[in-house]
This record gives sequence, C-alpha cells and structure tokens, in this order.
Amino acid sequence: MQLWNRSHSVADLRIDIDRMMNDFEELSKIGSTGDGGVHRPALSKSHLEARSWLRGTIEESGLELHVDAAGNHSGILRSANLDAATLLIGSHLDSVPNGGRFDGALGVLTGLEVLRTMKEAKIDVGVHLEVIDFTDEEGTLVGLMGSRAVAGILPESDLEHPRGGRKALDEAFRRAGITDPLSASRNPEDLAGYLEIHIEQGPRLIEANADIGIVTALVGIVSYQLAFRGRADHAGTTPMNARLDAGSAAADYMVAARRLAVEKFRRSVLNFGQCEFFPGAYNIVPDRANVALEFRSPEKEELDRLELALLEALALICDAHGLSHVHRRQSCVEPATCAPVARKALKESANGLGLTTMELVSGAGHDAQSMCAVCPSGMIFIPSTGGSHNPMEFATREACENGANTVLHAVMAGWGRSGKDFRQTA
Amino acid sequence: MQLWNRSHSVADLRIDIDRMMNDFEELSKIGSTGDGGVHRPALSKSHLEARSWLRGTIEESGLELHVDAAGNHSGILRSANLDAATLLIGSHLDSVPNGGRFDGALGVLTGLEVLRTMKEAKIDVGVHLEVIDFTDEEGTLVGLMGSRAVAGILPESDLEHPRGGRKALDEAFRRAGITDPLSASRNPEDLAGYLEIHIEQGPRLIEANADIGIVTALVGIVSYQLAFRGRADHAGTTPMNARLDAGSAAADYMVAARRLAVEKFRRSVLNFGQCEFFPGAYNIVPDRANVALEFRSPEKEELDRLELALLEALALICDAHGLSHVHRRQSCVEPATCAPVARKALKESANGLGLTTMELVSGAGHDAQSMCAVCPSGMIFIPSTGGSHNPMEFATREACENGANTVLHAVMAGWGRSGKDFRQTA
Repeated sequence: MQLWNRSHSVADLRIDIDRMMNDFEELSKIGSTGDGGVHRPALSKSHLEARSWLRGTIEESGLELHVDAAGNHSGILRSANLDAATLLIGSHLDSVPNGGRFDGALGVLTGLEVLRTMKEAKIDVGVHLEVIDFTDEEGTLVGLMGSRAVAGILPESDLEHPRGGRKALDEAFRRAGITDPLSASRNPEDLAGYLEIHIEQGPRLIEANADIGIVTALVGIVSYQLAFRGRADHAGTTPMNARLDAGSAAADYMVAARRLAVEKFRRSVLNFGQCEFFPGAYNIVPDRANVALEFRSPEKEELDRLELALLEALALICDAHGLSHVHRRQSCVEPATCAPVARKALKESANGLGLTTMELVSGAGHDAQSMCAVCPSGMIFIPSTGGSHNPMEFATREACENGANTVLHAVMAGWGRSGKDFRQTA
Repeated sequence: MQLWNRSHSVADLRIDIDRMMNDFEELSKIGSTGDGGVHRPALSKSHLEARSWLRGTIEESGLELHVDAAGNHSGILRSANLDAATLLIGSHLDSVPNGGRFDGALGVLTGLEVLRTMKEAKIDVGVHLEVIDFTDEEGTLVGLMGSRAVAGILPESDLEHPRGGRKALDEAFRRAGITDPLSASRNPEDLAGYLEIHIEQGPRLIEANADIGIVTALVGIVSYQLAFRGRADHAGTTPMNARLDAGSAAADYMVAARRLAVEKFRRSVLNFGQCEFFPGAYNIVPDRANVALEFRSPEKEELDRLELALLEALALICDAHGLSHVHRRQSCVEPATCAPVARKALKESANGLGLTTMELVSGAGHDAQSMCAVCPSGMIFIPSTGGSHNPMEFATREACENGANTVLHAVMAGWGRSGKDFRQTA
C-alpha cells in the first residue's frame, strides 16, 4: 500500500463534496415526489430502485458489495489487517411516505464518500470500513429492522406482529428476496464501532449557531395500536346520550393524551399518526376507531411513567363512554447512550476542522440506537431547516460537507475497540 | 271486475303475513353478513341482486314492472280509471355498509304485499297503486337520489359532486345501466300521494308501549366534508408546541362540536362518521385530517343556527392551531312535514285495527322527505329494537303485520288528491 508519509496531508484530507452532492441529486430522483421530497417506504418499488442504484455506485467505487440476510446493503473497504474488526458508517435509504430527501440518505452517502476518499488516499486505519444502508429504519414494516437485526436485538415477535401488518411484511420480503432477517446478526467482537451522520430535523443547532451536534443520547420510543370498540347506530335516530360512539371516545382520548404529555411530561413528545373510523359512513355512528399512538422520552423512567399514565387515561375514557377497547404494544425502543469515546472523537474531529459543536439529545430514533447496544457508537447532527419527514426538510451543501469531513477525520483519528491501534501503513 | 259486495269484507281484509315474511327471509339472504345484517350499498353487486329478486317477485305477483331512469324499481296495480293519479307506497332495498335487514326492505315488501292483497281482493280505490324501491336512500353515492329524482328536486350539482365521489358514481351507474336520473321526475299532478312504513330505529314507541308511530315531520340533514391542513413533521424532533398538527385540530374540533350540539342545540344531533389522518405513519405529525360531519334538526331555524355555530367553531379552532382548512357542504335535506290528510288516514286506519298510535318526529331522513315536497305524503313507524344501521336492528313479526295492515287500510280508505273518490267497483 502506498506510503502516506506527510502528516499535514492527513490533516488536509477532505471528502469530494461535488461528487457527494452529484450522488445526492441522482439518488433524490428515485421516488421523487416532485416537491423536493421522496416517497421510498421500506422495500417499496422506489426503495428497491434506490438500493439498485446504491449497488451500482458501490461497485463503481471499487468497494466490496455485500447484502446480508436482512437486506442491509454494504460497501466494504478492507484493512490489510484481515483479522481486524469492522467500523460501520451508515444510515438508511428508505423514507416515510412522502418524506424528505435528506433523512437517512445523507448518512449512507457520507459513509460512501468517506470510504471513497480513504480508498483514494490509500489510508488504512487498521479496521475494515463498511458503509451500510439499513433496512426499514422508518418502520414502514418493522422499525429499525435492519440495524436491530445486525445488533442481534430484533425480537422474533416483531416479525410475527409487524406494525405494518404481517401481509405487507411477507409481500415486501418476497419483493426484496429477504428470507431470514434474524440471521443477519453479527458478533459484537467483530464490530469496532458505528458512526452515523443525520440532519438534526429540529431547530436547536441553527438557534445556537453551531456547526455540528454531538449526540449524547437517543430517545426511547414506544408505539401502540389502539382500537376503540362501540356500536354502530343510526346517526339521526339515536339520541346523543344513548350512543356508544367509538369516534367520540377516540377524539376525547387524543385530546386528553396530548394534554397529559404537554402538561406533565415535558421532556416527552407524543403523536397520533393514524386515525380511522369504521364503518365509515356519514350517517352511521362509528362502531370502531383505530388509532396509532407513539411517544418518546430520553429517560427510561419518564417513558415508563408516561406509558402507564396513557394506559390509565385510555381505560378511564373508554369506561366513561361505556366502550371496550383493545391496545397492542407495537414496538419499544429503549433510550440509548452514545459512547463517550465516540463523542470525544467526533468533537475533536469537528473542532480540528474549525467547526463549532454542541451536545444534544436526539428526539428521533436512528439506527445508531440499535448499534449502541452492541458496540461503541457515535452520531452527529448537522443543522437543518423545514422540519422533517416532509419534502421541505433541507440542509445546506456546506453543512453536508462539514458533517462528512467530521466523520472522515473521526475515522482517520481512530477510535473504538480495534480502532485504537490507528496507524498509517505502507 | 268481481263485485266486492259485503261491507264487512273490506274491514276484515288483511295482508298475508306468512307470504310477506317468507319474502323478507328470502330478501335478507341477499348480501347477508351472517350476523343478521345485510351489506347492500346502493348499486353494489348485492344491491343489484336484491333488485333482480324484486323484479322477479313483482312479475310473479302479476304486477306491472317498471324501472325508471334513476333505477327506481316499481310494481304497478292499475285502476280501471286509466286517467287516475298514482298512489306510491315505497322505501328502498339499499343498505348502509354492514347495515340491518329491516331498514328500507320492510317498506318495499309492505308495499308489495298491500298491492298483492288488493289485487287478490280485486279492490280498485280509483288510483293506480305503485310499490316503489327508490335508488340510494342511504346516500352511499348521493343521498335520497331516487326519491329526489322522482320528486324533481335532485340538483344536478349533487351528481357532479357526489359525496361518495364522482368515480364511484360513474362506475355504479355503469353497473346499473343508469344514464339520466334527472329525467325520472314525475308530474306532481300525476301523484295522488306517497306512503311509507319503516322501523322506528329508536326507543320511543317501545317506551310508550305504542303500536304505530304517526310521523309528523322528518328532520333536516346537512353534511360537510372537512379537511384540516397542517404540516408533516417528524414526531420525535418537533417540539409539541412547534407542530401544525392536523390530527390534533381535528380531534379538538370533534370534541368541541359534539359539546356544542349536546349543550346548546338539544333538539339536534350530530355525527362524525368518517375520520382519517394523512400521510398516516406512526412517526409523522399528520399534515391532513379528513372528517365527515353530519347534523340534523327538525326545525329549519335551529338547523341554520347550528350550521353557523359549527362553522364558527371550525374557524376558531383552526386559527388557534395555526392551520388552514377546507370545508365543503356535501348535501342538505330540508326538514319536511307530513300531510295532515295522510296523518289522519293512517291514524284512523291503525285505530280501526285496534292499534294504539303516537305522533313523533323522524330523526332519520327517509324517501318520504323527498316526496313531501311534491305530493301529500304520510309515514308510519313500527316499534324496533337494537338501534339501527347495524345488524342488530329488529322488529317483531307482529309489529310488521300491524304496520302493513295499517298501510293497507289507509290505502283502502282512500286519501290524497284522486284518492278521495274511493269506491268499490265491479
């Protein structure tokens, strides 16, 4: 391997932002919604097309292509030390329905660009480097499926009762050729660490005028499917006080639950992302209302208390309406803490590049959350506007460049288990 | 025509309840949901099958079959007086989705049985008698479509912007061979009157221990499609107070509107029969919520005031949430009053049969509502249990028999315009 012999060359190394943004423009066309957004739900036609594009790009870049049993796509840059552990850099190419083009894609393209840059500079940091595109981070089928599979923390029950429904999951697996996601788990001893870059999806970095957010922890997320069960009645002949109105109970509950979160659980957030009444006629009092509930907190103790309070309110309101209900816990992601060694490496890398940093908690779940469970993991945010999970989400070219270079130099500085023996090789 | 020469024979005449209930059992199998209910949305496959059954039964009964341009199905028993007007007796065979088997069907089968009984007894009351099955009373496509078409009060705009959607209407018309519903309108001069029997769909007759309800008026009904427009955001990273949550606004509005109706408009009722959030993911704050609103009042003045109050509340709540909204008035049926001459004839008929009566307002819309606009119309209810618009709705065989005989004797007594010249003919 060619000698990398001038120390200032390492410090001066930068990713190729033109190449990275060209890739980003290409990728953003796949599943484009025409308004700046993309529609690439996990394992949908457009998502599989994005992955086909990624496979081509990995091979053109001279990286080693790998697709695992959970459908995760990787490009690998091997260390000369064949026994080395692997440092993963990744995120995901799937999106929420009609989502934004940065969420996830930026992390995968940054990993790709970092590997290309290091390959061209012929730098071997003593670990295998692997850019990874995880399957279904967004949870169209099963939330964090790919990264939890790799981390070995995906319960079989999540595949048996997926929140998108079993039929949708089976069909998606067939489309994507996925047969056994659980067998994608890796031996933690083989993992040097995990790095992820993502847009902030919130206003804190911009408000603080900071370049790079160093994530300290990721919120825990619990989701429930709720079904309110009442009685279908004629909407004209049944007196208002004689109804068993599932829709009315659902509306009361959504209002009460939101008030509870806002007033008593200030570090938590809550969302009702789905709601539908049945049988669904103007003149029939609904006998069923299906509602999707999700709530998050950075602290396990608060998350547990909120869950209890929400279930109590559900029982109380259904009782008051004379209704029955069914609730099913669809998923639970524990709050996660980023590795101090990774936070330190990322902060030093950013500062070394002249960038300002601030520490923050991630209100979103990310693949880093899964990886925190099995190897030293770090995550950075770059400033973004336009909220998130919508076509308006946006990060500047400069912010993307700053983020990618921060990852590059954290990797070059070496960290994590095997990453400690950072070296320049000939 | 055979002489009907003994006055007590007229008074003793009764419908054949065995034949009528046999028909009812046959009809209830069509579109049966297996739990006592039927699923026969207007012009669906099962509804068209029910109409095919009706055509066969009309022809077997020796009545004259007629299908008009709105798809309304009729069986006609001609008077010897060929210039006579027509007395209609009818209701509908369509149902709400997963509805009950009595709603509508009872009125059509009663009309059929009354005509068969009079045909067999060779009674000519000086008007043509016509049992009629109106198209889409329930409003799957366009509420009261068939009866409003006959009455000449169906606005063209209701066909252009049907509440079930234009595509569904076009497809249904193609299936049923309906091309021009508006041309089904009849000359009011040709109509002697209209009679309808229906289950009460409420508890008042049973609570009052009355056999027959004499309907004095039918409530007016207004319906709206509401769309709350917010912004899709990430449900974890967006602070609760920084969201433009369309679902939250919709829930607040449903709670507030219901409270308004219950507390300030006590003669009115209100229903939210449809509600759906979009884009519909656990982790996206909804950017849109579609809600179907319907409200009813027996008094035009109260109906108008309620409408105004509901629109004011809508604007206030959307403002408070920082959202925009769209509301479209989908339909409006004015409150209607039954003809005193019809009420009198029906009451006297019931009392003559030894049945007790009570006057009441119909909280439901019925085809009688359309017909009230163009000819003297009367309506009776029979006691029913199990609410309505659901498989549990139920009326006893005895109640059905009492109702049918009340209609039979009101028709034989003669009423309405041409019906006044009641006579027995040879």
